[in-house]
Amino acid sequence: MIISMKRHSTKEEIDQVCERIRDFGYKVHSIEGEERVVIGVVGMGDVTACLESVEAMPQVERAVRISAPYKFVSREFRPAKTQVVANGVEIGGDEFIVMAGPCSVENEKQILEAAEGVAACGAKFLRGGAFKPRTSPYDFQGLEEEGLKLLHKAKQATGLGIITEVMSDRDVELVASYADILQIGARNMQNFSLLKTLGRCGRPVLLKRGMSSTIKELLMSAEYVVAHGNSDVILCERGIRTFETATRNTCDITAVALLNELTHLPVILDPSHATGKRSLVPALSRAGVAIGADGLIVEVHPHPDKAVSDGAQSLDLPQFAKMMRDLEPYVKLWKSSREAVAAVAV
Amino acid sequence: MIISMKRHSTKEEIDQVCERIRDFGYKVHSIEGEERVVIGVVGMGDVTACLESVEAMPQVERAVRISAPYKFVSREFRPAKTQVVANGVEIGGDEFIVMAGPCSVENEKQILEAAEGVAACGAKFLRGGAFKPRTSPYDFQGLEEEGLKLLHKAKQATGLGIITEVMSDRDVELVASYADILQIGARNMQNFSLLKTLGRCGRPVLLKRGMSSTIKELLMSAEYVVAHGNSDVILCERGIRTFETATRNTCDITAVALLNELTHLPVILDPSHATGKRSLVPALSRAGVAIGADGLIVEVHPHPDKAVSDGAQSLDLPQFAKMMRDLEPYVKLWKSSREAVAAVAV
Amino acid sequence: MIISMKRHSTKEEIDQVCERIRDFGYKVHSIEGEERVVIGVVGMGDVTACLESVEAMPQVERAVRISAPYKFVSREFRPAKTQVVANGVEIGGDEFIVMAGPCSVENEKQILEAAEGVAACGAKFLRGGAFKPRTSPYDFQGLEEEGLKLLHKAKQATGLGIITEVMSDRDVELVASYADILQIGARNMQNFSLLKTLGRCGRPVLLKRGMSSTIKELLMSAEYVVAHGNSDVILCERGIRTFETATRNTCDITAVALLNELTHLPVILDPSHATGKRSLVPALSRAGVAIGADGLIVEVHPHPDKAVSDGAQSLDLPQFAKMMRDLEPYVKLWKSSREAVAAVAV
Amino acid sequence: MIISMKRHSTKEEIDQVCERIRDFGYKVHSIEGEERVVIGVVGMGDVTACLESVEAMPQVERAVRISAPYKFVSREFRPAKTQVVANGVEIGGDEFIVMAGPCSVENEKQILEAAEGVAACGAKFLRGGAFKPRTSPYDFQGLEEEGLKLLHKAKQATGLGIITEVMSDRDVELVASYADILQIGARNMQNFSLLKTLGRCGRPVLLKRGMSSTIKELLMSAEYVVAHGNSDVILCERGIRTFETATRNTCDITAVALLNELTHLPVILDPSHATGKRSLVPALSRAGVAIGADGLIVEVHPHPDKAVSDGAQSLDLPQFAKMMRDLEPYVKLWKSSREAVAAVAV
Repeated sequence: MIISMKRHSTKEEIDQVCERIRDFGYKVHSIEGEERVVIGVVGMGDVTACLESVEAMPQVERAVRISAPYKFVSREFRPAKTQVVANGVEIGGDEFIVMAGPCSVENEKQILEAAEGVAACGAKFLRGGAFKPRTSPYDFQGLEEEGLKLLHKAKQATGLGIITEVMSDRDVELVASYADILQIGARNMQNFSLLKTLGRCGRPVLLKRGMSSTIKELLMSAEYVVAHGNSDVILCERGIRTFETATRNTCDITAVALLNELTHLPVILDPSHATGKRSLVPALSRAGVAIGADGLIVEVHPHPDKAVSDGAQSLDLPQFAKMMRDLEPYVKLWKSSREAVAAVAV
Repeated sequence: MIISMKRHSTKEEIDQVCERIRDFGYKVHSIEGEERVVIGVVGMGDVTACLESVEAMPQVERAVRISAPYKFVSREFRPAKTQVVANGVEIGGDEFIVMAGPCSVENEKQILEAAEGVAACGAKFLRGGAFKPRTSPYDFQGLEEEGLKLLHKAKQATGLGIITEVMSDRDVELVASYADILQIGARNMQNFSLLKTLGRCGRPVLLKRGMSSTIKELLMSAEYVVAHGNSDVILCERGIRTFETATRNTCDITAVALLNELTHLPVILDPSHATGKRSLVPALSRAGVAIGADGLIVEVHPHPDKAVSDGAQSLDLPQFAKMMRDLEPYVKLWKSSREAVAAVAV
Repeated sequence: MIISMKRHSTKEEIDQVCERIRDFGYKVHSIEGEERVVIGVVGMGDVTACLESVEAMPQVERAVRISAPYKFVSREFRPAKTQVVANGVEIGGDEFIVMAGPCSVENEKQILEAAEGVAACGAKFLRGGAFKPRTSPYDFQGLEEEGLKLLHKAKQATGLGIITEVMSDRDVELVASYADILQIGARNMQNFSLLKTLGRCGRPVLLKRGMSSTIKELLMSAEYVVAHGNSDVILCERGIRTFETATRNTCDITAVALLNELTHLPVILDPSHATGKRSLVPALSRAGVAIGADGLIVEVHPHPDKAVSDGAQSLDLPQFAKMMRDLEPYVKLWKSSREAVAAVAV
Repeated sequence: MIISMKRHSTKEEIDQVCERIRDFGYKVHSIEGEERVVIGVVGMGDVTACLESVEAMPQVERAVRISAPYKFVSREFRPAKTQVVANGVEIGGDEFIVMAGPCSVENEKQILEAAEGVAACGAKFLRGGAFKPRTSPYDFQGLEEEGLKLLHKAKQATGLGIITEVMSDRDVELVASYADILQIGARNMQNFSLLKTLGRCGRPVLLKRGMSSTIKELLMSAEYVVAHGNSDVILCERGIRTFETATRNTCDITAVALLNELTHLPVILDPSHATGKRSLVPALSRAGVAIGADGLIVEVHPHPDKAVSDGAQSLDLPQFAKMMRDLEPYVKLWKSSREAVAAVAV
């Protein structure tokens, strides 16, 4: 059950509602938004009686029964798609959004060249890792704060928004002071301490699906962030781990369509990690547009053969430019179908 | 290594070439086509020397070194895409081909209604199972020959080609006498006795990827059919088995793009088994067109709620009609890109 | 529901019972054993009423409600473990049974050397493939009937029972004329035509779990064989396909314990395919004994470095001898626990 | 390459060695133990020349070439098994070690009852979660520091060592002040910030294999902890995620045997998470002893039906007592085989 309070309800009114809910044996989680408070109700009890009783209270705007284990992120709670705004750009809205850039921030020249290149092709965000999760302790671990500063420079030079990974709750504040979107990597999708901290970070979060996480688990992890106070969550399908080794991961592209049914949160696709192979990225990107993703996050490096990480899956700038051109007619179809949906909704 | 003999080589000439190859320590597999013989060479030996020696023989048209473990089906052997023709329709050519129909042939009324419905929407083949692989021995096992006869009636009524599954080498001849394309189900992808028999069946074969088969294994199974004499093989991605249970299978859509790199055989997508959920079929079908599949095989039933099998993933006729209309602009883009490839090839 | 008829019921009596069952809306499958007929009932209807009505009939000995989708093979149907007898040896009884031998029958010298070697160490069955399922059409496909004859020679020389694979329903009769146990490989676990034929083959069947088959699917495949008339089925865990590539497959050893809960059929373990690595076979074999498998099937080759297939996972004869010696104290514990179970049952 | 310095080398001597190594183009990672410094060398260069040159330096005791990507944890670096000591108990030594207790610390009565119960049966460590990783934000998240205090009370009452999970680098110091072993859960196996912090925590670490982590990745994560200064790492197989849903996870028991080949670190088995089903725990535990694990970590709850988490897989105290008795003869065999190994080593 989710209860939306009327705008500008007082603390006292909210407490009254919470008390009523607890009388029915439920637990209460409330989120304070800027304009209104939303109360999440979980546990076992007489749902129908509780709903009726609470809906009758004057301070309550709406009370909805939600059958899924995730509440705030479910379509039942919010039938219309959510738009997440970062650096003035809307994700989940009328524009198909491309985020692009290198795996790692390596140096000023590299990141500026990448930023200018991808901006010129129509990307809206620059990706690039300053904190790098690496399987081996002996591999390059990222430039850390120095990398964040270089990303900031690239933002100043190009106007691109910045998306970059944060790996520890200890670094959330630091990364949030430079980035427009905080990226949570696949290995941290169930780092619950980190997810809780993101609830209070004041920045949109891009949550990558874990390598062996189910769609339900992905939504539960998003629910962590939202239940802890931050409703600006973007989901990302980046391939799952299966028996197939011909590609780096197996892109579960159907997940994009299924997530669009289950949640109102924006969903983007990472064709680079999903394939691990440069030549497959454009084809999978087309499929991503066609299936209805809200955007792409693509690895692009000015000189992939010299990249310190993920060179094999990075496009160079001319390849990225060609891909963006080739995507145009698909993006046009994407837009018409969004408009059609919007027209129906009106 | 693959050796193409000149047209109308004599048996003696072929034997000379084979002997030469064996002198280098290799094993020889030859396929007799209608016009020319092709010799596949496998084993360990001095490739360069053998190639040079054989190419110098007057009866030999071309000798190609092939690094992949699959030979005849690899792009190295045949750089241009193969067109498989069935019931006068080309698969792998300039048209995007849709095969549609119910999971099982149930009775005359059902199959005729399905056939007329899908033909009216632009499908070129009618699918429908007469021999059904069922997990439980107590489930409906198909109408067998009676089902084949009903499919034939539907063909006469609509002109649609027929694609239907064969499950045992014992039934190949029977099924081939009714069907235009023999379908090999996921569970039989490595039924090697069946694959060998298909080499001599005189019909195109649609080979579905096994639930836990790698792309390489799929190509090796196709190689079985081709090496035993039948080069008309169509591959089909239908989802693989992973830890995710939100969908019936996990569609490895990237496999379509990767297969297009590795093999010249046509590749089609089965969005019905890949998702197991009707509502996801249109979105995944769009993705299939966009990524470059040669066609779709879709479950359509006049009354899915009464279907004896796979009702949950079957579209009804109005849903199929809507999906086909919505696919049109994507198919147009597909055609332009095929023409672009063809223009480059010329 | 499963109905056991009294011994020596007449056809008429059986028909009466079947008719009664059909009156309740169910479907009927009957198995004629040597002494009595057993009737399997599937479908939807009023279970309680049907049970009561049938139990009251004089010809009926016992009527049992079975909730699992597999009926004859479930523990609910038969609480005591089944003993399968082949070549006079009981599998599923008081002795821990080892089957051993090479992957493929290669020639007379090899198979006789293997047979004598493994017999000397206490193996009761000789394994060895005459029909080989190979991923590549260019790999050695087995000696076929010639191989069966060599196995027969080895049996005459050593007294060992013979277990060998059959890959097609067309070969069942041939293989059954030489072998004591017909082995169904992982790739054929859902070759339903083959399973049906095995119902009438007159030989015990060893059914290997498919690479990506669930435990439930394995039991359903066993149910196929039993429902078609052959209750002598032995199950075999041989590793499943997962993301892990450090071993050839991932041994789902817990499946052995779970199968012992769910079914009365004997369960054996194949540590060779499960690991793909010789050095791991003895350790996994110990675990197999400890967890309560009824036996092992192990690849042993007199000269693994010269084996035409699976050399890396084959033990040589001294390694096998050492393993068998090292297993002895574990087998002793196994026997005490079987005796303890038997004592409780009495 | 790994370089062991002589005992009590000076900083200057160490620097000289590092400089020499860098001259060959390598990167250097050093670990300062209490008695001696060990230098890990990674990167590309002339291994043979570098080894020879460094071995000739007087301060160097030993220089070993290591081919695996993990260095300090590999058997090549240290052929003899490592003993990790916690609360005076040796793990990886001559005794088979059992850790047992509830999933979560719930209250004083529960944890004391559990502790006394498992201690009486021979367990050496009490497990129990104070910080709980839960898929849903609405599930019980653990008593946190209050739970740690209760664990400490249980230790005082029973003398058992304490093992408990830490989920964030921020909590490492706190948890280390109460626990004898810090447990890293499957979801955090690649939480690299946490792994680095554990390098300086002053406590042994039990590292659980991630749900979809390869054995190589597990060893790389252990390498993180060791390379950051803490060589007291215990590995734990707890089941991986596969397509099979009959058990909670699929126990990759072969991993225990393979890890014993690849690493000198102790390896223990968690039969509770591996199965998710109480009735399977004793059988899998027997297999764990037989295959050569160094110990078990088992969920035991005084009243599993009232447990706030993981009740279905928890044994009650009489079940645990029975299991421990039944394991005794297997543990005896385990000890003889350890003694046999030790005798050979001498």
